[in-house]
Amino acid sequence: MPNSGYPETRSFIAEQLRQETGLPFTEDHIVMSVGAAGGLNVLLKAILNEGEKVIVPSPYFVEFQFYIANHGGRIVLVDTRDDFSLDVEAIARAIDEETRAILINSPNNPTGVVYSEEELRELGEVLKEKSRGREKPLYLISDDTYKTLVYNGRPPLNVFNFYEATVSVFSYSKSLNIPGERIGYVAINPLFSGAGELMDALTFTTRILGFVNAPALMQRLIPLAGYDQVEIKNYQRKRDLLYEALTEFGYEVVKPGGAFYMFPKTPIEDDVAFVADLQRNFHILTVPGRGFGRGGHFRISYCVEMEVIERSLEGFREAAKKYGLY
Amino acid sequence: MPNSGYPETRSFIAEQLRQETGLPFTEDHIVMSVGAAGGLNVLLKAILNEGEKVIVPSPYFVEFQFYIANHGGRIVLVDTRDDFSLDVEAIARAIDEETRAILINSPNNPTGVVYSEEELRELGEVLKEKSRGREKPLYLISDDTYKTLVYNGRPPLNVFNFYEATVSVFSYSKSLNIPGERIGYVAINPLFSGAGELMDALTFTTRILGFVNAPALMQRLIPLAGYDQVEIKNYQRKRDLLYEALTEFGYEVVKPGGAFYMFPKTPIEDDVAFVADLQRNFHILTVPGRGFGRGGHFRISYCVEMEVIERSLEGFREAAKKYGLY
Repeated sequence: MPNSGYPETRSFIAEQLRQETGLPFTEDHIVMSVGAAGGLNVLLKAILNEGEKVIVPSPYFVEFQFYIANHGGRIVLVDTRDDFSLDVEAIARAIDEETRAILINSPNNPTGVVYSEEELRELGEVLKEKSRGREKPLYLISDDTYKTLVYNGRPPLNVFNFYEATVSVFSYSKSLNIPGERIGYVAINPLFSGAGELMDALTFTTRILGFVNAPALMQRLIPLAGYDQVEIKNYQRKRDLLYEALTEFGYEVVKPGGAFYMFPKTPIEDDVAFVADLQRNFHILTVPGRGFGRGGHFRISYCVEMEVIERSLEGFREAAKKYGLY
Repeated sequence: MPNSGYPETRSFIAEQLRQETGLPFTEDHIVMSVGAAGGLNVLLKAILNEGEKVIVPSPYFVEFQFYIANHGGRIVLVDTRDDFSLDVEAIARAIDEETRAILINSPNNPTGVVYSEEELRELGEVLKEKSRGREKPLYLISDDTYKTLVYNGRPPLNVFNFYEATVSVFSYSKSLNIPGERIGYVAINPLFSGAGELMDALTFTTRILGFVNAPALMQRLIPLAGYDQVEIKNYQRKRDLLYEALTEFGYEVVKPGGAFYMFPKTPIEDDVAFVADLQRNFHILTVPGRGFGRGGHFRISYCVEMEVIERSLEGFREAAKKYGLY
């Protein structure tokens, strides 16, 4: 097997991406990876020079900072708007000579927010503009781990059609519910003129970072799994129940469009204290927002049984009373 | 699952290592890894500071140089003796203030040589001596990928009993013949006083380098496979056939004690030209020695069907005649 993975598996994925995007993907645009985290590391190793910057909209998945630092890069956080949508103007202002890439994640961990086509179009325009005159274009990296978990029958976000130097990183851990199996891929936009060179670089970094190749048996599984994926409706029911209850109790919540996270404001400024109180006195496990670069919020993961969510509601109500929301 | 892997799997491996070594291994000395290459990267990320040196006996597995460079280290090659045994005096001379570790590989790729207890004892003495007065000891890293492939019923080399700050990296790819499945482990000597701290560091680097955890299903497989392993006798028969034929034809070969590689001298100085000639005119695929840091040699991998080896012998004989060996 090449370090990039079984050609049959890569062809299967290319066919899926052709259908999703209308773009001429082939196996030569796909590198199988050890999950999305493996894919991101392989990609960042391939594209970053020492000291170069990667812009990440915040709140953000905190491991990104390690992945970027692993390969000599520097993370630059740019706050999203209050509704966690992309602040494209702020991103544009943050781009400088040392910027190499923008790393987005939609549906987003921790907010569950799905970026709109309009946001991506604006971002694409900015990246085109800022890439002009550069030896190498800025990269748009899309961590598409939650791509298949979007609600209301909305099709998965297609990140490729707004900018050529776009690379998507995907994991099957959520779409097939196989966490821990470490199978995913990196997909390079076929329209990107540097696709061949990047493909060679990714194949090489897959090998030398010690991934060597994505797990062989799981690679065989992917075409067999075909278009199967977990039932999104189950997640959506959980989101609806939780969102409606929390807003009723007075919490300020941006309604998630996908994934299985919610990122409400905490009723007090100190999110660490609030999360500790939720755990100790109301037996609800959440994570402080400051771990994701945004204090004054807390992350709820609702990738749990419906009964667990149902049982938590009374606790959320009591906490809301205690802090004067309800 | 913790990033270090399933406790049951790690306990099973600890029990095996207790039996092999008599040392008090527990699950707290084992981190499951994405193969040996993943394990080495995780380990090197955990222990190396920018610019520190890792000594590697040469000829050597050339990927080591990338793994070391990935984490800011510098590789320092020290030639082995003519019989590819460790030149412990030369290693001692190469150790300086900036040295952080020695990385050995036995049975060795490309030579098939197995280091003796005597060599390891001498090396352990040198490392003890050279670690004196340092804030942190030098590490002995043993890439034990081929550990189970040793001939003549010899037990696998036990690297732990000669030096405390010893870490073994293992892969099941050869012992269970499952190349590509990316399952292995890192084992820390229980006698090493820094074992707990190193364990924490390895768990963390497993996560942040993007491995996250070793593939889950394969972790489940390891205790089920128990003490199974590929039949060594098959490799030994191939070694015997090839070794006897090559020496009869006049090639100078150090007899391999394990693995499935042989590293004869080329009849002409230019190993690249010889290997090209072997391929073009005698239809035998080998690799030039200079790719492993030792020109004037070529590597034969005999992890192939017996018929392939049998069919190659006439070609080796004809090549020997052409170059005046036979």
